[in-house]
Amino acid sequence: MSFKVGIIGAGPSGLAMLRAFESEQKKGNEIPEIKCFEKQDNWGGMWNYTWRTGVGKYGEPLHGSMYRYLWSNGPKECLEFSDYTFSEHFGKPISSYPPREVLFDYIEGRIKQSNARKYIKFNTVARWVDYDEESKTFRVIFDDLANNRTFEEVFDYLIVATGHFSTPNMPYFKGIDKFPGAVMHAHDFRGADQFSGKDILLVGSSYSAEDIGVQCYKHGVNSVTISYRSNPIGCKWPEEIKEVALLTHFEGDTAYFKDGSSKRFDAVVFCTGYQHKFPFLPDSLRLKTKNCLYPDKLYKGIIFNEATNLLYLGMQDQYYTFNMFDAQAWFARDYMLGRVAIPDKLEREKDIKEWMDNEARTVSGDDHIDFQTAYIKDLMNNTDYPDFNLDKVADLFKSWLKDKEDNILTYRDKVYQSVMDDVHAEKHHTPWIKELDDSYERFFEEEEVADEAEISRVNYY
Amino acid sequence: MSFKVGIIGAGPSGLAMLRAFESEQKKGNEIPEIKCFEKQDNWGGMWNYTWRTGVGKYGEPLHGSMYRYLWSNGPKECLEFSDYTFSEHFGKPISSYPPREVLFDYIEGRIKQSNARKYIKFNTVARWVDYDEESKTFRVIFDDLANNRTFEEVFDYLIVATGHFSTPNMPYFKGIDKFPGAVMHAHDFRGADQFSGKDILLVGSSYSAEDIGVQCYKHGVNSVTISYRSNPIGCKWPEEIKEVALLTHFEGDTAYFKDGSSKRFDAVVFCTGYQHKFPFLPDSLRLKTKNCLYPDKLYKGIIFNEATNLLYLGMQDQYYTFNMFDAQAWFARDYMLGRVAIPDKLEREKDIKEWMDNEARTVSGDDHIDFQTAYIKDLMNNTDYPDFNLDKVADLFKSWLKDKEDNILTYRDKVYQSVMDDVHAEKHHTPWIKELDDSYERFFEEEEVADEAEISRVNYY
Repeated sequence: MSFKVGIIGAGPSGLAMLRAFESEQKKGNEIPEIKCFEKQDNWGGMWNYTWRTGVGKYGEPLHGSMYRYLWSNGPKECLEFSDYTFSEHFGKPISSYPPREVLFDYIEGRIKQSNARKYIKFNTVARWVDYDEESKTFRVIFDDLANNRTFEEVFDYLIVATGHFSTPNMPYFKGIDKFPGAVMHAHDFRGADQFSGKDILLVGSSYSAEDIGVQCYKHGVNSVTISYRSNPIGCKWPEEIKEVALLTHFEGDTAYFKDGSSKRFDAVVFCTGYQHKFPFLPDSLRLKTKNCLYPDKLYKGIIFNEATNLLYLGMQDQYYTFNMFDAQAWFARDYMLGRVAIPDKLEREKDIKEWMDNEARTVSGDDHIDFQTAYIKDLMNNTDYPDFNLDKVADLFKSWLKDKEDNILTYRDKVYQSVMDDVHAEKHHTPWIKELDDSYERFFEEEEVADEAEISRVNYY
Repeated sequence: MSFKVGIIGAGPSGLAMLRAFESEQKKGNEIPEIKCFEKQDNWGGMWNYTWRTGVGKYGEPLHGSMYRYLWSNGPKECLEFSDYTFSEHFGKPISSYPPREVLFDYIEGRIKQSNARKYIKFNTVARWVDYDEESKTFRVIFDDLANNRTFEEVFDYLIVATGHFSTPNMPYFKGIDKFPGAVMHAHDFRGADQFSGKDILLVGSSYSAEDIGVQCYKHGVNSVTISYRSNPIGCKWPEEIKEVALLTHFEGDTAYFKDGSSKRFDAVVFCTGYQHKFPFLPDSLRLKTKNCLYPDKLYKGIIFNEATNLLYLGMQDQYYTFNMFDAQAWFARDYMLGRVAIPDKLEREKDIKEWMDNEARTVSGDDHIDFQTAYIKDLMNNTDYPDFNLDKVADLFKSWLKDKEDNILTYRDKVYQSVMDDVHAEKHHTPWIKELDDSYERFFEEEEVADEAEISRVNYY
């Protein structure tokens, strides 16, 4: 096999790509030469927590947007790998909403069984890509951060798996430059502890605002105010959390809202989303999109329509995550191996447009789930990624939306059944709202710790 | 004139380069084709304040490390341009330690009199530089951030004027990942307000720690603890500021120090310096140095010894600032215009080594000042940058060191005489320690506002 594949990023998408090739190799088939490059010092992408904010050890913008006390905000049964179940990894049933460390352990569990690590060069960032039209190859400049050395590689296929929840979108509001308290984007939020007893303002009304809001409530802030642009999240909030209309401006430490109300705050967290950003690519090869379920220019959500040896993984807004990345990676592999033929450019454009038109017609959360389910089905029809009942997963997603609507503070106590191996999740030893310790050790403690004074002590409250 | 010069950065160094060419043009002489590219949306470099932290509007690592309530920490008479004095700009004497906005106004005042702005493309970051050995030209890829477009330019000379106080150096200490309060580098510090009444730990013992420490004291923190690695700053601190030995680790919100002491903190600010970082350059063209007065590989502190059409401005640790950048820019201009001959590589190496050896022999602050004074004299001997009495400036620097040692809280109330036009600085209307408003408007208020309640109101305290 005489071609060479470069993978940028060793998060869930990049690892899925490595895993896809490994599964091919295990069948006794030849695979191309593969190299994977990861900016961070370990794999796991977003799931690789860092205490740092802003830029990393070597001055690169940080990838991670994870914070302490982050628990999965969707049932684990919706993101389960079909070729490596939670039961297989943990050897027993666990609850449906594990904290970050436990999920990281699961992701790592699968990839550790492979030889993937030998393909990955860590602490290495892609600086620049030149595309040679004649040879149809990519010259990629990498920067070996730990050694302050640059080097080049040439690839026939380039896989961009760098995620799109790393580059903050942070609008300006009049007066924010004089706001005396802490101001940060959710990307740099590292846990509610520093806001204990404070009044905090969250700008935005998507997952970050919802999750940071309830974490702050759980961990003892005085009040949370969530300012939405068009529509409130609309949960049944506890008394300490309120939604208000769009922020208009600040005067000193006071924020003013469109409905004429105002309030003094100690801190502002911008939960205003992320930008798709690819600084290492010439703009002709860049995916230019907002966060949506079907970005333009990607055939099958993967193949860049202007240069079909450039592939993007995981660039969609996500209900499905790990198993969608898998389906994409398996499809990408089979495409590179020449097993999947693609139509000509115009046909591909038509196909993309059809999907985009369909997305435009979606209205509700359920519609979005159905859309992404259909997308993954389409991919899976073209690969040998172990089949699973996608309709059942879609049903889980819909239950999850309802659970959240019913009670934002208890939905994480619900348990579901695995679609992959039918194992029922175990009810967790402690209700989520009372569990202030998100560590792996605490998660797997057998006995229920009912002593709240002890929990407080352990958590320095 | 058939060559082309690219300037990266429109801070004090890049602007000095533009000004140097302008002064040549005003004499009726021809100048080369010039283009300057600035990542930020305005000129002024570090002096262009932003409320943002981490990454900017377009996701680039932020250049700015400035914070609210920053006043010059050296007398303005030491950084005065010799071709544009403070008196000329403000039309009257002002005090010796102006706040940031006033200094920004001064920098901008000179450059606004020129046509420099037409050479500068803002919101544009250098992505990658390829050097063509044969043609001895640089191909530079730029990214037009606002339009998400990349483009190429080719230059005969490349001037790197991107500064070296933008990329945080942030060491890891055991337990910092579980510290519950705010953790930030001085680069992301935006003012003491949010720490009012708190106990804060500053790690480091250079200018950032000293200045953030006294600002926090002035603006009402409960206590400041400064942890030094080798030697304390050694000022006569007020009771609320203490210096302690090296930080060893954290347990929860408590920091432990090498001398066995420990203390609980609400926040940690790392004042641990900056890295020289040039992500857009191949490592063969990168200046690799720590912060020092004479970085290796730079002939005359400017010309990269491995590729003599690559010039660096302002890469030294700085006592002198604006007028040193000017002297460098004038020298760089005359070198590019062919008026200054340089010896062969080995001779240049010898010369660099001699300077570096001299720096190695410096011990005291006074020695450092003498060293940098000698360096600038050497440059000025080769240019027509308006001459000024450098020995007098060196004396001012030495007085300043003594003033700070005498009283860290009152040294900014001292006034000096301009070396450029002999104008005596005016005593400021309010002692620095009582002045909580750092705005341009407040600085130029005529009457003394003695009413502290009023000051408090204006500043939202």
